[in-house]
Amino acid sequence: MTHQIHTSPVASIQEERAKAAFQIRELTFLLDGGEKMTLLKERFMQEFERDPLFKMDDIHDISKDELRARTMEKFRSLVHHLSNEPIDIFRKRMECVSLIDPGFWTRFGVHCALQSNATSGQLGYWFEKGALSLTNMVGCFAMTELGHGSNVPGLETTATFDAASDQFILHTPTLTATKWWIGGAAHSATHAAVFAQLIVHGKCYGTKIFIVPLRDPKTYQTLPGICIGDLGKKMGRDGIDNGYIQFTHVRIPRGYMLMKHTRVLRSGHVIEPKLQQLTYGALLQGRVAMVVDSGHVSKKALTIAIRYAAVRRQFVRGDAKVETKLLDYPIHQHRLMPLLAQTFAMLFTGVEMTSMYLQMMDKLEHAKPGDADLEHVLEMLKETHATSAGLKAFCTWNCLSTIEACRQACGGHGYSAYTGLAGMYQDFAVQCTWEGDNTILALQLGRYLVHSYREAKEGKTLSPGVGYLNGLQQMLHQQCTAEQDAMGVSVIQEGWRVVCAHAVHAAALEFEACLSQGASVDDAYEQCSKSRLYAAKLHSYGYLFNRFLDAVHKVQSELKTVLMEVCLLYGYYTIEENTGAFLLSGYFTASHIQHIRRRLDQLCESVRHQAVPLVDAFNLTDYVINSPLGRSDGNVYVHYFEQVKRSNPQGPHPYFDRLIKPLISRNQYEEQDNDDDDEQAGLESMDEDEEE
Amino acid sequence: MTHQIHTSPVASIQEERAKAAFQIRELTFLLDGGEKMTLLKERFMQEFERDPLFKMDDIHDISKDELRARTMEKFRSLVHHLSNEPIDIFRKRMECVSLIDPGFWTRFGVHCALQSNATSGQLGYWFEKGALSLTNMVGCFAMTELGHGSNVPGLETTATFDAASDQFILHTPTLTATKWWIGGAAHSATHAAVFAQLIVHGKCYGTKIFIVPLRDPKTYQTLPGICIGDLGKKMGRDGIDNGYIQFTHVRIPRGYMLMKHTRVLRSGHVIEPKLQQLTYGALLQGRVAMVVDSGHVSKKALTIAIRYAAVRRQFVRGDAKVETKLLDYPIHQHRLMPLLAQTFAMLFTGVEMTSMYLQMMDKLEHAKPGDADLEHVLEMLKETHATSAGLKAFCTWNCLSTIEACRQACGGHGYSAYTGLAGMYQDFAVQCTWEGDNTILALQLGRYLVHSYREAKEGKTLSPGVGYLNGLQQMLHQQCTAEQDAMGVSVIQEGWRVVCAHAVHAAALEFEACLSQGASVDDAYEQCSKSRLYAAKLHSYGYLFNRFLDAVHKVQSELKTVLMEVCLLYGYYTIEENTGAFLLSGYFTASHIQHIRRRLDQLCESVRHQAVPLVDAFNLTDYVINSPLGRSDGNVYVHYFEQVKRSNPQGPHPYFDRLIKPLISRNQYEEQDNDDDDEQAGLESMDEDEEE
Repeated sequence: MTHQIHTSPVASIQEERAKAAFQIRELTFLLDGGEKMTLLKERFMQEFERDPLFKMDDIHDISKDELRARTMEKFRSLVHHLSNEPIDIFRKRMECVSLIDPGFWTRFGVHCALQSNATSGQLGYWFEKGALSLTNMVGCFAMTELGHGSNVPGLETTATFDAASDQFILHTPTLTATKWWIGGAAHSATHAAVFAQLIVHGKCYGTKIFIVPLRDPKTYQTLPGICIGDLGKKMGRDGIDNGYIQFTHVRIPRGYMLMKHTRVLRSGHVIEPKLQQLTYGALLQGRVAMVVDSGHVSKKALTIAIRYAAVRRQFVRGDAKVETKLLDYPIHQHRLMPLLAQTFAMLFTGVEMTSMYLQMMDKLEHAKPGDADLEHVLEMLKETHATSAGLKAFCTWNCLSTIEACRQACGGHGYSAYTGLAGMYQDFAVQCTWEGDNTILALQLGRYLVHSYREAKEGKTLSPGVGYLNGLQQMLHQQCTAEQDAMGVSVIQEGWRVVCAHAVHAAALEFEACLSQGASVDDAYEQCSKSRLYAAKLHSYGYLFNRFLDAVHKVQSELKTVLMEVCLLYGYYTIEENTGAFLLSGYFTASHIQHIRRRLDQLCESVRHQAVPLVDAFNLTDYVINSPLGRSDGNVYVHYFEQVKRSNPQGPHPYFDRLIKPLISRNQYEEQDNDDDDEQAGLESMDEDEEE
Repeated sequence: MTHQIHTSPVASIQEERAKAAFQIRELTFLLDGGEKMTLLKERFMQEFERDPLFKMDDIHDISKDELRARTMEKFRSLVHHLSNEPIDIFRKRMECVSLIDPGFWTRFGVHCALQSNATSGQLGYWFEKGALSLTNMVGCFAMTELGHGSNVPGLETTATFDAASDQFILHTPTLTATKWWIGGAAHSATHAAVFAQLIVHGKCYGTKIFIVPLRDPKTYQTLPGICIGDLGKKMGRDGIDNGYIQFTHVRIPRGYMLMKHTRVLRSGHVIEPKLQQLTYGALLQGRVAMVVDSGHVSKKALTIAIRYAAVRRQFVRGDAKVETKLLDYPIHQHRLMPLLAQTFAMLFTGVEMTSMYLQMMDKLEHAKPGDADLEHVLEMLKETHATSAGLKAFCTWNCLSTIEACRQACGGHGYSAYTGLAGMYQDFAVQCTWEGDNTILALQLGRYLVHSYREAKEGKTLSPGVGYLNGLQQMLHQQCTAEQDAMGVSVIQEGWRVVCAHAVHAAALEFEACLSQGASVDDAYEQCSKSRLYAAKLHSYGYLFNRFLDAVHKVQSELKTVLMEVCLLYGYYTIEENTGAFLLSGYFTASHIQHIRRRLDQLCESVRHQAVPLVDAFNLTDYVINSPLGRSDGNVYVHYFEQVKRSNPQGPHPYFDRLIKPLISRNQYEEQDNDDDDEQAGLESMDEDEEE
C-alpha cells in the first residue's frame, strides 16, 4: 500500500514552534549571558556570513590545498579585527569562528605561549617584533614530538646553553624527537615556541620554552638547521597546515628562552621558580575552552538532528493519515532528549568554569610566596586543575558521541558531507586527544580524588567539590529514603554524592592494598587505574549535574519551569546510564531504578514538545548551522536537493571514454539487439503456463 | 629530567612475539576455516598487493574524482575474475577486497536483485544481455528515496501497468520520491533495479522490483525521461559514485518487472506469492555479510592499535630505565583486550551465521507450500531473521566503536590519515545505517522477543535461541549459586539467560500494560520500544557469548587454552558492561560483581601477553593493514615518517606570494632590525637585577 503523504515539512516545524511554553528569546539571553552578548554574537554571525572569505557552503568540496589557502585568507581578515577591537571582544569573535569553521581555528600558537611564559620585557620585545599584529612574524606552538605526546617531561629535543656565545643550541637528537603535529609549521609560521630540555653546564633542568625563528619572513625560505615537512592529510581540520620540524644545532640568543618562570642568567646561573603551580594557568585555559566548545558544538549538532526529526516522517502508525514524525517515536526521543539535556549541563558548566578560571588567574597573577591566602588559592587551584582535567575529558567524549548520535539519528542523510555532521565529527575528534589525552586527564582527576580521600581520612576539611569525602563513613551507608513521588533534584544530588563516595572509596582501597603489598605510590596508582578512571567519570557526571542545577536555581523567570524539567531529565538519564553504580552503592534499590526509568520516559516525552523551541533558543543562524537538514524553515528536502545540485554541477562524463567504454563494449559482437526479445524479456513461457 | 630512551620498537615487538603460548599458524587456520582457506586468502592478498590498480598507499591523498576513476579501473580488473573463477571463490576474493578498500566495494547491485527476484527465464535473459559479465550493462540497486529509507512499503515511486502497450510506466511523483544514495548511478550504471509501487488497473500491490535502462551503453547519455545527478561528497567511501534518479513517465516492457514472487500477466492479472517469507532470504544475506565484515574490520583496527601499543612507550615508572609500553598499562589493557575478545566473538558468530544462512537458503530454495517440514523451516527462518537483525545492529555498532577506540588508543597519531583508523571509521560508519537502520533492526529483534514471550506463555516450545523464555517463572527467580572460585563459563551462560529473560519479561509487561489500556498492537510496541531495544541488546550480547563458547568447545587442539581465556574475558567484560542489568535481575549480588571485576582485571593482564600473537594470527599483511603504526616489524616511527614524507613531497611554497607576503610585510616600515636588541630580547634589566 502506498502512503503518498505530502505533509509539508515547513508546516511540521511551525507546529513545533507553536508549542513553545517559554520565551525563546529570554532563554537565548540567559545562555549567552545577557542581551548585550546575544546582540554581539548576532553581529559576528552576520559579519562572517557576509564576508566572502568566510563562504562555507562549498567547504566540503574543496581540496586540502584550497582549504589551507583559504585559511590563510581568513587569517588575514581576522588579523584586522585583532588589531582593532578589545581582546575580550576578539575572543568572543573567535568563539563564533570556531563554531562556523572548526577546521580553521587553531590557537594563535606563539602568542598564547608568550602570554603565559614571557617576562613583561620579553612580551614587549616580541609584540614590537610583530607577534601580536602578525607583522613580520606568524607563530606556531611546538610541543609534541613524534615519540612523545602526553609526556611533556619526556620530550627529547634539547636546548643547550653555550656560555661562550650566550646562546642556546636547539637540537633534535633522534627521529622520535622530531616535533610533530605542529599547527601552522608546514607553510605558515616564521617562528616556533619550542618545548625543549634546558641543559646548562651539562645539567638538565627539564622542559622550557624557546622562541626559534624558522623562516625568513621576506622569502619564507627555512633558516639554516631547520628542516620542515608537511604532515599532510588528517581526519579533519585540513585547513591547518600541520607540520614536523627537526632542528640541527640551531643557535638562538639566550633571551629567546621565555623566562617568566625559570631564568638562565648570562653566567649560566639557573633560577627556578618558587611556585611551580603557577605554570598550571595556561593548561587550565585550554581545558576550560574545550568544555565551553563541547557545549557549543553539541548545540549545533542537536539543532540539526532535532529540526530534522521534527519534519522527517517515517511509517504510518495505526489508522493515521500521515506518517509519524521521528520526534514522535519514543525511541527517537530517548536518542535525542538526554543529549539535549546534557548539552545544557555542559553549557552551564562552561560558564561557571570560565568565571572560576578568570577569578583564579586574577589571584594567581598577583600571588607572591608568603601571601596570607596563598595556601587557600593553591588549594583551589589544585581542585580546579583536577576537575577541569576530568571535565575536559568527559565533555569532549560526550560531545563526540553526541555528534555521532545526531548523525545516526539523521539516517542515511547523516552520511552525506553536505548535511554537516560527518565533518563535524571529523573536526571534533582530535579534541579527545590534544591538550592532554582524555584517558590520561581523567586519570589525573582520579588521582586527585584518591589523594583527597586520604587527606580527608587524616582529618583535613576538603574544598566543597570533593566535600563528600569528608564524613565518608556515613556517606557509604546512606540510602535513599525519599518516597517515590518526592524523588526530585535533591535526591539526585544526594545520590551522586553517595555514588561518588563509593567509587572513590573503592579506588582508594585498591590503591592502599597495593601500597600495603609493597608497591610504590606510582605503581599503586597504575594498578588502581581502572577504578580511578571510573571514580573520575562518576565525579564528573555528578559535577555536571550540580552545575546545571545551580544554574537553574539562579533563574528567576518563567524559564525556570522548562529548565528544571530538562535538568531533572538529565539527572535521571545519568542515573539510568550508571544503574550499576547506583545499585552497587546501595543508595537506590531496584524499585527506585524502575521508578526513575518510568519518570525518564515521561520527561523525554514532555521535553520532546519543547525540543524545537529549545534548539531555537541556541540561536544559531542557518549560515552557522550550514546543514540543509537543520534549516530553521524546516524545508529540508528542497534545501538539501539544491545544495547537492549546486555542489555537483553536471559536466561531461568524467571517464566514459577512458575507462567504461573499453569495459562495457569488449564483447560487442555478442550483443543481442532483438526488440521482440526485449518485449518478452524471458517471460514467454510463463505467461502461457499461467494465463488460462 | 630527560629520559632519552632509544629502546628499539623492533625489539619491543619481537619480545612480544616470543611470548606466544600457542601455534599462531594453527589459530589462523582455525579462524579462516582451514589451511586451504588461509592459503587462498594469502594468494588473494598477494595478488592485490602486486596489482598496480590496487595501489593503496596514496589512497588518502587523491581526490574524489580520482578515487572514482580508480574504482572503475578496479572494477574492470575484478570483472576478469568474476568471469574466470567459481562464484564462491570470487566471493572470498570480494571479502578480501572489502578489507583492503571498503570505499571501493559496493554490491554488484542489479545482479544481487536479479538472483533473488528474477524467474529463471528472466535470469537467463539478463545474463545473456551481459548482467553477469558486465558487458553492455552495469547495474545499480535503486531502493532508497530522498524521503524514505527504512520504510520500503512507504516508497513513492510508481510503476503503473499500461495494458494497451503491455508496458510499465515508471514515475517519480514528488521531490521526496527521488531515488537517493544509489551507488553507481552518478556515472557508472546503465541499468537500475528500481523498487516501485506496482499499480495495475488503479490498484496498488506494494513495492516490486523493475529493471529500468538508464543510459545508452554506447554513449552513456541518459535515456529519455531519466534525470540523474551526482550526490557528491560523503563521510567516506568516496570511490563510489552515489547518485539520485528521477523518472518521468519512463516506459519499460512488462517483462522487465522481476517476477519470481509476484507476477503480472499480459492481461493485467496479478498473481501474488503464497509464501511471502521467501523474500526474506536476500535481507538475511546482507545482514550475515555485515556481521562477518564487523569481525574482519575489527581485526584490522585491533592489529594496528595492539602492535602500536606494544612498541609505543610513554612515561617512566618508578626506577625503570626505559619508558613503559602502552600495553603494560592496566588502563590500556582495559581499553583494548575486551575489544580483542569481542572481535573473536564476532568472528565465530559470523562463521556460524554464514553456515546457518546457507543451510536455510538451501531448504527455502526447495520449499513448496504443503511440505512436511515447511512449518519448521519457516520457524527457523523467523528466528534467524530476527537474530540476524539484532546482530547486524550490535556488531556494526561494536565495530564502529572498536575502530574509534583503537584510533584514540593511538593518541595523536590516530588523527593522521596515514595511520588508517580515521578513514576506516569514515568508511565503516554507513554500515550502522544501510541495509536497515540499526535502531530499527534492533527493535525488530525486540518485537520478535516480546512475541516469542507471548507464544511461550501460551505453551509453545520455542526454538533454542529463545528457549530461555520457556519456563520463564523459574528463570526469573534464578540466582547464582556457584562459589566465586567456580564462576566459569557455565555461570556466565546461565547469567545471560536469566538477564535476557528479565529484560524480555519487562518489555513484554510494558507491552501488555499498553494493550490493556486500549492501545493497538503497533502503538503498544512503540510505547515499549526502549525496553524492547534493551532486551534486543542483551539478547544479542548473550548470543555472541554463546557462539564464542560453542566455537571454543569444538576446538580440540592446544589452542583451547588461550581461546577459553579470551572467551572468559569476553564473558566477564559483557557482564561488567551490563552490571545494572545483572544486579536488577538478582542473578548476581554486589559481591559477585566485585569478584568478576577482579577476574576481568587479571584476564586483561594475562591476555595482554598473548595480544601480539593473537593479532598476528589474524594474518593480515602489511599491505592490507596499510598503516605504519600496524606494521608487523614494529618499526613504526620509521615507516610513519617515510609515509608522511612520500605522501607530501616538498614543492615551492603554495601561497606565499599571493597570501602571506601581503599580510606579513604590510607594515614593513615599522620593522625593527637591531641585532643588539635581538641578542638581549627584552632581558636587559632582568639580568642586571639578578646577577649579583
